Amino acid sequence: MNIVVFLYDNMTALDVIGPYEVLSRLPEADLKFVAENKGIVRSDMKSLGISVDYSIEDIHSADIFLVGGGPGSEAVRNNARVIDWVRAINENATWTASVCTGSLILAKAGLLDGKRATSHFASLDTLHELGAVPCKERVVIDGNVITGAGVSAGIDMGLTLFSKIAGEEFAKAVQLGIEYDPQPPFDCGSPEKAPPELIALVKATLAA
Amino acid sequence: MNIVVFLYDNMTALDVIGPYEVLSRLPEADLKFVAENKGIVRSDMKSLGISVDYSIEDIHSADIFLVGGGPGSEAVRNNARVIDWVRAINENATWTASVCTGSLILAKAGLLDGKRATSHFASLDTLHELGAVPCKERVVIDGNVITGAGVSAGIDMGLTLFSKIAGEEFAKAVQLGIEYDPQPPFDCGSPEKAPPELIALVKATLAA
Repeated sequence: MNIVVFLYDNMTALDVIGPYEVLSRLPEADLKFVAENKGIVRSDMKSLGISVDYSIEDIHSADIFLVGGGPGSEAVRNNARVIDWVRAINENATWTASVCTGSLILAKAGLLDGKRATSHFASLDTLHELGAVPCKERVVIDGNVITGAGVSAGIDMGLTLFSKIAGEEFAKAVQLGIEYDPQPPFDCGSPEKAPPELIALVKATLAA
Repeated sequence: MNIVVFLYDNMTALDVIGPYEVLSRLPEADLKFVAENKGIVRSDMKSLGISVDYSIEDIHSADIFLVGGGPGSEAVRNNARVIDWVRAINENATWTASVCTGSLILAKAGLLDGKRATSHFASLDTLHELGAVPCKERVVIDGNVITGAGVSAGIDMGLTLFSKIAGEEFAKAVQLGIEYDPQPPFDCGSPEKAPPELIALVKATLAA
């Protein structure tokens, strides 16, 4: 099981580490972190640096292809070399997956044209502009593409994808192994549950 | 706000990346990843390498001190040099925090003697042996120490700690920002909810 996780500067770390923690437990998983260039990729909060052992030149295929989101996703969308590579990797991938604004990268590569998909709630309009059919759901599957909502949704996406590949019983064991019985301290984790002023604050912060 | 996250080989990445994603958003957060030695630390699933810019010799204090868990935590508990450092950093920390078996490291350093604390469900007996009062709760606060249960509990722990430091309104904005409205695909994420054979499977896997 050849899993390729694409990283870039200014990404949001949890977007990819959530599903990484799940998908790396697939039977015979061979998981590689890949970036445009080898070296250290810095996340959006700067202090985290992830060591990347493979550049996009080294990687030509994936069984599972995962792209996370973050402020740096806009620069990726404007990088034709990377977008061409994303398109090429998807072509033979069994599954292409995204979390948060990672779906905007997939959409820019034309992979979501007319497809149902999700993204961070603040980016659903952009997802629509890029040709996808945005859905306000936590995890969306359309064909070979599975997309998760904002940041923390990658854990739910990862477990859902894991169960599709390795079966429900194994997925349940992984969910229990990472003790995923979430108890958020507040009931405000989606725009449906949060007051308008909180939504406005988060949208303004993300836009800045 | 001086935040120190201790890393080591064979740790579980999500343990620390969950709370990192939250705590790095504290006002004026200055977050440093620290390990016994500088360089690349490899997580338990191997393919992830985190770049560590500071060794324990460089770091002498923290406002928030965070220790995650994972299979490598046992080697850390047997490393007197690191355990002495953990004890010293805690001494002036406003908050000392752990996720999963990170609490066993704190306990080994004597920081949990007679204190209520939690850990991965499969490690609560060991936590007791090391002098703590184990609690089957997702997040436990006793004095200046906050402990989270297994792996994914670090997000709940991080948001709880965030709200203690920066207030509920700001914590709610962060929870919405990372769209933390979890929808686990299965209702089996804690031993209270999982069938006995699944619990036995997970415990056997973790022990192996």
